[in-house]
Amino acid sequence: MNEPKKQLHLNLFILSTGHHEGSWRHPDAQPQLATSLDYYQQLAKTAERGKMDSIFLAEKYRLTPLIKYRVIPQLEAFTLLSAIAAVTEHIGLTATASTTYNEPYHIARKFASLDHISGGRTGWNIVTSTGDATAHNFSKEHHLDHKVRYERGKEFVEVVKRLWAGWSENSLLVDKQSGIYADVSRIKGAEFAGEFFSVKGALNIPRSPQTHPVLVQAGSSEDGKQFAAELAEVIFTAQNTMEEAIAFYTDVKSRLKQFGRSEDKLKILPGFIPFVGDTEAEAKAKERELNKLAVSEYGIRSLSDLLKINLFQYPLDGPVPLEDLPSIDEIQGQKARFQLYVDLARRENLTIRELIIRTAGGRGHFTFAGTAVQIADEMERWLVNGAADGFNLMPALLPGGLDDFVNKVIPELQKRGIYRTEYTGSTLREHLGLTLEHELVTRS
Amino acid sequence: MNEPKKQLHLNLFILSTGHHEGSWRHPDAQPQLATSLDYYQQLAKTAERGKMDSIFLAEKYRLTPLIKYRVIPQLEAFTLLSAIAAVTEHIGLTATASTTYNEPYHIARKFASLDHISGGRTGWNIVTSTGDATAHNFSKEHHLDHKVRYERGKEFVEVVKRLWAGWSENSLLVDKQSGIYADVSRIKGAEFAGEFFSVKGALNIPRSPQTHPVLVQAGSSEDGKQFAAELAEVIFTAQNTMEEAIAFYTDVKSRLKQFGRSEDKLKILPGFIPFVGDTEAEAKAKERELNKLAVSEYGIRSLSDLLKINLFQYPLDGPVPLEDLPSIDEIQGQKARFQLYVDLARRENLTIRELIIRTAGGRGHFTFAGTAVQIADEMERWLVNGAADGFNLMPALLPGGLDDFVNKVIPELQKRGIYRTEYTGSTLREHLGLTLEHELVTRS
Ligand SMILES: Cc1cc2nc3c(=O)[nH]c(=O)nc-3n(C[C@H](O)[C@H](O)[C@H](O)COP(=O)(O)O)c2cc1C
Ligand SMILES: Cc1cc2nc3c(=O)[nH]c(=O)nc-3n(C[C@H](O)[C@H](O)[C@H](O)COP(=O)(O)O)c2cc1C
Repeated sequence: MNEPKKQLHLNLFILSTGHHEGSWRHPDAQPQLATSLDYYQQLAKTAERGKMDSIFLAEKYRLTPLIKYRVIPQLEAFTLLSAIAAVTEHIGLTATASTTYNEPYHIARKFASLDHISGGRTGWNIVTSTGDATAHNFSKEHHLDHKVRYERGKEFVEVVKRLWAGWSENSLLVDKQSGIYADVSRIKGAEFAGEFFSVKGALNIPRSPQTHPVLVQAGSSEDGKQFAAELAEVIFTAQNTMEEAIAFYTDVKSRLKQFGRSEDKLKILPGFIPFVGDTEAEAKAKERELNKLAVSEYGIRSLSDLLKINLFQYPLDGPVPLEDLPSIDEIQGQKARFQLYVDLARRENLTIRELIIRTAGGRGHFTFAGTAVQIADEMERWLVNGAADGFNLMPALLPGGLDDFVNKVIPELQKRGIYRTEYTGSTLREHLGLTLEHELVTRS
Repeated sequence: MNEPKKQLHLNLFILSTGHHEGSWRHPDAQPQLATSLDYYQQLAKTAERGKMDSIFLAEKYRLTPLIKYRVIPQLEAFTLLSAIAAVTEHIGLTATASTTYNEPYHIARKFASLDHISGGRTGWNIVTSTGDATAHNFSKEHHLDHKVRYERGKEFVEVVKRLWAGWSENSLLVDKQSGIYADVSRIKGAEFAGEFFSVKGALNIPRSPQTHPVLVQAGSSEDGKQFAAELAEVIFTAQNTMEEAIAFYTDVKSRLKQFGRSEDKLKILPGFIPFVGDTEAEAKAKERELNKLAVSEYGIRSLSDLLKINLFQYPLDGPVPLEDLPSIDEIQGQKARFQLYVDLARRENLTIRELIIRTAGGRGHFTFAGTAVQIADEMERWLVNGAADGFNLMPALLPGGLDDFVNKVIPELQKRGIYRTEYTGSTLREHLGLTLEHELVTRS
């Protein structure tokens, strides 16, 4: 008898007209639907038709002036996912929420509520946010330092887990006869007093189907990886090549032991931008068509922001000025992405223009253009070679890129026995093949 | 030709099994559905069938130990209303959010998002919260003083309005040809620096159908009334008798002029708890049946909390100890409700037990048991005598009390020409017969 094959997990990262910065200019794109509920509900239904584990929404608490060149507006994650929960049945719903600009009590309530509403389908992408521009919207002068952000993040997670775990299955008696509704001895407060937060609790929402959302992490710095190894059940990451992805995968998985966790408890999902064609040539043409739609001023400005250097001073077709860049230690923002771009430019000896084009579609995430069979080959290769437990699917163009993937690539993955043909569980944690780890409920 | 009759506005205040504290013990009550989306969606659909202006959810950021005796859990307002928006078409969706424990940037985003999702059906019940128990869930030792809460509240509202008004109708160019998505000169930041908040802005969600939610206020203290007269479009209030309601109505309406607003710009909706029967006797029996289900220990404890005195020390059938109560100036919490209870006990010379029973169903809100005709008579009387612009309907028992009202009282109101038979507008503000006041958009 054959051993059961390792199963691929798929999350759909939803972003307006798609992840390519020029996608909104594509003839098929409908940028005017960026604030339309129906548009997002349709995407979620397509992902559900594709039996994916979950959809995911990023979340920023500021407006970048780069909105001049691309679709930035997006509905708020909790309200949008809740309205999507109402019209879907199976698919997981992962919302981003920052530990730097929120209160644990609010976040605990929102996830508990969404978990009830969706019947246990929530995930939480735990981020620490980037940049002073966000701080300026929250009565703060500066964003917290990278290290402090993660310290605060850990405390934040500890508090919300205590709030969620404060309720047990039998906290509610609901005894109409005696008039006793709740057994208050079975509802515990967080009783937490730390460096950043002091929260007495208890939560005013009973234990939800999953107890707490699946915990997701998306930082790839040293602090980020430790955080994930200790606390997360899923990690999103940007990996440009399979070799880098293997190194990352091995590194992160090896860290789990120190927290008493086995390697299968944390699913690693690198971003993946597929271009699906009936022929390889057609797929590559789709990619080129989008690349042509990128606005070069946008590219120079966003790359300047990331690399902390004004690239308008340099010739667009000259080399990326690697010697003039700050060192990684000086980067307080997106350390991992900074490193990824520098490595890419160095390895392939790129000009500024080339680096912009190479990253326009996916900001350093793995991109692949080919037929459904070629794409499935590539995904399976990552899966069996220990580069990924699945992918964070980031279609360059929406909804077209998603439709292509679901109609053509998913059947190919199913045929190989590495992807579900029906949902078997009902919660997101079940879709991911995970169970609630006792240590992840609360450490108290 | 007859003058068009003044129209009655109805808001449904949704609360688990109903507003009577003993409602969950009623044989028809389904307290196990307090966290069920479907239950709330059905209530909203019934209210929509009854052509009501809106549904409304209260919101507390703490758990009271009184959960021992009554259904306290409720889903979080934004997630719940969003999932309700997805299955309704017309009815307004009013969420409570506190200005004391939130950040303006988050609240601005959530309402903008819900307003997009619902096609312009949102309302915001602006509250300042009560009690140290809430403070303890937000890393604070004490709740802010009553006066400071309202100062902070005003600043909060100013900030969110600037964020909402920062976008204009034509901020988005969406010019695929030139690659210009937004006209950044038409997106303004809040640029606010005040005593409590400093928020640069701009919001990252475009102008929503209503520009901003209908602003609702529910405090009845001196500060609360001034706040409402200056900023609110709807006021919820607890008034025990028509005479008190007229005094309140006259008082609040007369305050509008000082802010350059006409009297019709603020709709006053007292709470109303109807018991509908086919005969008056049947209605009164329904009321008595619920009163019998109130747990006396709950009543004594919650009344003690409100009056800031330990009533367990006094005989239950003795008079309310009016002389031993603190003065209203010492009350930092619910000033208006404190006054209402004291007045009621004095006027009717009540014992502690009697005061508990009188307030068990509706915490001092107007209660009336009768036939559909009698109830419609009473509502019309309040409407034409300048006691109310409509009501905040608070059924003692849900869903039964709402079904009765929609099936029996609504047709009676419609027959009299004081209540719509079809929705004519599409936004909540239109349902209320209001337009967006320029001064309410932003003062800057
Ligand atoms: C797929 C993916 C999605 C992300 N989504 C968000 C987001 O929604 N909001 C945010 O502030 N950061 C987001 N991030 C950024 C990271 O969570 C993290 O804050 C950032 O990478 C800096 O952390 P690091 O220095 O540990 O890498 C995302 C990263 C990845 C890979
Ligand atoms: C119908 C109604 C609903 C209310 N809902 C809430 C609520 O959800 N959350 C809250 O903290 N206060 C709520 N309140 C309380 C008031 O908004 C206000 O905070 C309180 O009455 C104290 O203010 P005051 O002293 O000005 O009356 C409500 C009051 C009324 C009349």
